[in-house]
Amino acid sequence: MAREYWKPSNMLYPVPAVLVCCADEDGRANVMTAAWAGTICSDPVMVSVSIRKERYSYDIIKRTGEFTVCLTTERMAKAVDYVGVKSGRDIDKFALKGDLKLTKIPSQKVKAPGVAESPVCLECVTKQVIELGSHDMFVAEVVCTNVDTKYMDEKGRFDLSKADLMAYSHGEYYGLGEYLGRFGYSVKKKK
Amino acid sequence: MAREYWKPSNMLYPVPAVLVCCADEDGRANVMTAAWAGTICSDPVMVSVSIRKERYSYDIIKRTGEFTVCLTTERMAKAVDYVGVKSGRDIDKFALKGDLKLTKIPSQKVKAPGVAESPVCLECVTKQVIELGSHDMFVAEVVCTNVDTKYMDEKGRFDLSKADLMAYSHGEYYGLGEYLGRFGYSVKKKK
Repeated sequence: MAREYWKPSNMLYPVPAVLVCCADEDGRANVMTAAWAGTICSDPVMVSVSIRKERYSYDIIKRTGEFTVCLTTERMAKAVDYVGVKSGRDIDKFALKGDLKLTKIPSQKVKAPGVAESPVCLECVTKQVIELGSHDMFVAEVVCTNVDTKYMDEKGRFDLSKADLMAYSHGEYYGLGEYLGRFGYSVKKKK
Repeated sequence: MAREYWKPSNMLYPVPAVLVCCADEDGRANVMTAAWAGTICSDPVMVSVSIRKERYSYDIIKRTGEFTVCLTTERMAKAVDYVGVKSGRDIDKFALKGDLKLTKIPSQKVKAPGVAESPVCLECVTKQVIELGSHDMFVAEVVCTNVDTKYMDEKGRFDLSKADLMAYSHGEYYGLGEYLGRFGYSVKKKK
């Protein structure tokens, strides 16, 4: 075993590759990909998304204080990558076709839309914007969870494990792989 | 396609299942698992970790302002789960054996240790603590990246894809699965 000590680097992986949607005052919607996103509080349910000031969505989210965070699946990989590279200044990202298609759907509590292809969209209201450097962190409360009913079983339980979620790790997209256990399994007594 | 609109819920997945290590003023180290963690800024490199006030590590990290964030692999699943369930008030989590074993290693820039079994440990200094509710968010700058050289190839490049990282999704641990593409692949011209 040997260790090397390097300068600080962005190496906290895997992270989610989420879609962040917003809508401006004229109702024009945009969607971008964010990897610097996560849950930050369980009660109230809060998430953070870090966004570069140069991003087209930045000003819209800063002004409106609303956005959605939409989970992504293996099937969405190409579209997720594409809307993470292209800017809403240049194209309407909700008008793409084929495997780049992302379908805008209404949210219940915010004007920012959700994405039909996403198994879960979290409707978010900004509570605080913290300037950090390359990115500003939007600290937000989740005000509604909007889910695709096709992942619900016959008892009405939502089964996220059926959604084939996607992860992002050091520049690469991956599906989730081998199931390793449920939270708490290491202390369960064998029957 | 049908959607249902639910109350706010913790549904942003997959997330990393990281180990967060700390050391008190007497050098007594502890390690806990955190799923509410992620990168929040690329430059300077910053991460956040959200921790419940009741956690044994909370006071230590609050007082010392230092911790490490250590990535986890499939092989570490059982240990990661165990130190996420058990408290450092009751046991010395760096003295466990077998598949629960986590080996304390020195950090370069902070007193909090790293974990030998982790491919990457990020040494962190707290910049801000934000009270959110169930959790406080520790906003921190990464001051050193400490890596296991066994993931470096013959050219000295670190290959995180060899580390078999683990993800956490809705109460379950998973390995990373199918490789779906590299960031930017959707806009690459075919040769």
